[in-house]
Amino acid sequence: MKDKNRSPIVLLTDFGIRDAFAGIVKGVILSINPGARILDLSHGIRPQDILHGSFVLSSSARFFPGGTIFCVVVDPGVGSGRRPILVKTRDYSFIGPDNGVMFPAAQENDIRSITHLTREEYFLQPVSSTFHGRDIFAPVAAHLSLGRPKENFGPCLDSMIPFEIPSPKSRGDELILTIIHIDTFGNLTLNLSGERFKEFSQGGFVLEASGAGDKKISINESCNTYAEAREGIPFVLESSTGHMEIAVKNGNAARTLGLERLDTMLLRSNE
Amino acid sequence: MKDKNRSPIVLLTDFGIRDAFAGIVKGVILSINPGARILDLSHGIRPQDILHGSFVLSSSARFFPGGTIFCVVVDPGVGSGRRPILVKTRDYSFIGPDNGVMFPAAQENDIRSITHLTREEYFLQPVSSTFHGRDIFAPVAAHLSLGRPKENFGPCLDSMIPFEIPSPKSRGDELILTIIHIDTFGNLTLNLSGERFKEFSQGGFVLEASGAGDKKISINESCNTYAEAREGIPFVLESSTGHMEIAVKNGNAARTLGLERLDTMLLRSNE
Amino acid sequence: MKDKNRSPIVLLTDFGIRDAFAGIVKGVILSINPGARILDLSHGIRPQDILHGSFVLSSSARFFPGGTIFCVVVDPGVGSGRRPILVKTRDYSFIGPDNGVMFPAAQENDIRSITHLTREEYFLQPVSSTFHGRDIFAPVAAHLSLGRPKENFGPCLDSMIPFEIPSPKSRGDELILTIIHIDTFGNLTLNLSGERFKEFSQGGFVLEASGAGDKKISINESCNTYAEAREGIPFVLESSTGHMEIAVKNGNAARTLGLERLDTMLLRSNE
Repeated sequence: MKDKNRSPIVLLTDFGIRDAFAGIVKGVILSINPGARILDLSHGIRPQDILHGSFVLSSSARFFPGGTIFCVVVDPGVGSGRRPILVKTRDYSFIGPDNGVMFPAAQENDIRSITHLTREEYFLQPVSSTFHGRDIFAPVAAHLSLGRPKENFGPCLDSMIPFEIPSPKSRGDELILTIIHIDTFGNLTLNLSGERFKEFSQGGFVLEASGAGDKKISINESCNTYAEAREGIPFVLESSTGHMEIAVKNGNAARTLGLERLDTMLLRSNE
Repeated sequence: MKDKNRSPIVLLTDFGIRDAFAGIVKGVILSINPGARILDLSHGIRPQDILHGSFVLSSSARFFPGGTIFCVVVDPGVGSGRRPILVKTRDYSFIGPDNGVMFPAAQENDIRSITHLTREEYFLQPVSSTFHGRDIFAPVAAHLSLGRPKENFGPCLDSMIPFEIPSPKSRGDELILTIIHIDTFGNLTLNLSGERFKEFSQGGFVLEASGAGDKKISINESCNTYAEAREGIPFVLESSTGHMEIAVKNGNAARTLGLERLDTMLLRSNE
Repeated sequence: MKDKNRSPIVLLTDFGIRDAFAGIVKGVILSINPGARILDLSHGIRPQDILHGSFVLSSSARFFPGGTIFCVVVDPGVGSGRRPILVKTRDYSFIGPDNGVMFPAAQENDIRSITHLTREEYFLQPVSSTFHGRDIFAPVAAHLSLGRPKENFGPCLDSMIPFEIPSPKSRGDELILTIIHIDTFGNLTLNLSGERFKEFSQGGFVLEASGAGDKKISINESCNTYAEAREGIPFVLESSTGHMEIAVKNGNAARTLGLERLDTMLLRSNE
């Protein structure tokens, strides 16, 4: 039990930082488990943005210690029929809406069980139709951190709603890539692993797109670090998440290139 | 004493996240009570905005466990004659400036005592004229979390400066409402409880306003959840705080309608 | 050991709040020291901005209790030859890149030793070339918080890269000042101590600059508090960090005056 109490509860939400939502969730957790350790992963997910939330969660979950409980509130379907679930994986527990946002992170960690959260005695009463983060996910996370077994919270499910971060598409010798994330520094994350890029670009490469105002973009430099890049010239490198990303040294690639998330790019080998 | 140490200290400020202010307050608390549990409620209150601060605090305080110490720094009058106070309510302690920001939350929880913070031995010395969050509120919160009785900090006061979140006004058969908050999702919170709305709108309703550029706005749909609403059509629903709010499904109502905080709206019954 | 476990690990980064970076760093720390106490100082440093980071760190470090471990990730040179270091000062440990960002805070607290972080057994493997916050600084901070002596992490260095926050320059009877920080409230921090200002301005003063569009700016009021200032008239006061700052009561001085960080101003005595 003492050990269980150490399991951190990690919050990932789209609440932003100007409202009471994140604070309320923390209050609810502490009211149930006064010894809970609560950590903010991010409250800066774009409102209701499943791709953004799933990318941040799947990029970070594996760095947390075994036993960590992720409480995920990116929930455009709140109040609809979408199910509230608890997903147990090899190392972690994920609590949130069954809308795909937790799927990539859970899948990578080997899904062991999915519980439909139906046992209202573990909810905050009355359950609102607009804020299940407060009324369902936070209290279940707190009860789970106290060591309650998953069976308490409801029946098993066979599956959860899948969500796939877009993958690269082949077209002849080319790859059609998608910008799946733009980080705080303006770096553009592509849906291409460093490994696959290396194979593909051995004889040199060119990465093309149309930026704002149909400006033609063409990138053919790759670097191992930001530091070795030339100022002002966009280049690709393998990011810390293992994805290829486009960066501009001491600059903001998204702004420089006029590219946005979900824009596509064409990768051609020079061979 | 051990129990006292568990009392979380919850920070609500307008410090933003680009400066050292929030960090400094945490450092001061830990220097006095190394075992303090410090939680961020929000540092995103609009600078010196009493309405915003009081709304966030009164929306969230009741979800925290008994014993919680709220340290509130929204303090336009710092350095003037405004008093630093500690307010004890049925379940909580509120520490901050006597400018109304803590009033609605304290009043809802039944005010038991108000202490004028005058005992300088509990302050950080020298006390600046610009940062009482650091010099007075944080150290008093830390000492209080160590179990010191309120009598230590100064004399009792009979009252604190009141602050009322605007209430609806009747005009004949109509209600004049005020937008008292706009959340991260662009939902507009009205100063009308769900209960009162239900009574008022049994025979149908229309909610009117003038948006940016005098655009005529007229809303007559109400929903129980975001999910059941139609895309693109503004509607009202009871929010998780119990207030009526205006939302646009998968959209941003404030932007769509061109309405701002403190704008008024007219609610008419169809009966 | 128990005491060591109490040493808070304080995070100061330019990660922003929309990405996984801050969460990942917390996960890495907890994976090594499950009892670690992690606090956010700020994740809002402007990307790669050494001046901003060093100012926030040097303004706040001294308020934390002895033993605090600061983990600083403002790291434009990541992946280059810049050294990862651990700096021990009289009261604190600073871990981060050797690029100057930690220098002012460390120097103020009396530098006792500088360790070049080279012992890879304390790093997360493999070490990326883009995210030493995760791979080097966080794990070393966690191991340090477990009580490991600094000798474990690598050899001693004689010096670290200095970084000086710009100081005022004399020109005849005048002082040329620099705006070194603009805070959340729009207050402009000058590189002039309150003490020196007092000496300089005994017979009255005038502070001049050219704002946006070459608008002539001239300030000659000084106040002890925001509260005693007149609405709308820019004035100077001694800020809570001990620097002189320019403020506008209930307003935003940066916006009102059209001044930016690193703009210079001329201070003349009336004597």
